[in-house]
Amino acid sequence: MPRSRKDRILPVAPVDRLIRSAGAGRVSDKGAERLAQILEEVGEYLAKRAYELTTHADRKTITDKDIELAYKQWSKSL
Amino acid sequence: MPRSRKDRILPVAPVDRLIRSAGAGRVSDKGAERLAQILEEVGEYLAKRAYELTTHADRKTITDKDIELAYKQWSKSL
Repeated sequence: MPRSRKDRILPVAPVDRLIRSAGAGRVSDKGAERLAQILEEVGEYLAKRAYELTTHADRKTITDKDIELAYKQWSKSL
Repeated sequence: MPRSRKDRILPVAPVDRLIRSAGAGRVSDKGAERLAQILEEVGEYLAKRAYELTTHADRKTITDKDIELAYKQWSKSL
């Protein structure tokens, strides 16, 4: 179910700039919103996997190493 | 090569909130920065794929449909 704007955590404006910096001249509002939504889903998913690695290592604070391993394992599992 | 903070397009603060909302209590600064960097890479990659779909359809403006198809094709190709 698509989230409403209120629920969104990632702001759309930087995602809009990200798309333009990738070489595209123009992007519709809905296009930028959809990408922000996707990145938020990917981010939440990676954060959950990273936190599993954190607790697995008997720690409480997620570090860049946890994020890194979660990303590596995820990109191989898809 | 890791980007410097200056080059970053996605702000770290909302990514930090995203990680906390995923159930993790604490996250290191580097952890949040690394996830912001990853999401930016994923976002740029998806934007490039989406723009190829845009030009393929003889359009100039990236829409949510282009983003959607790029995401669908990417998640199947990985």
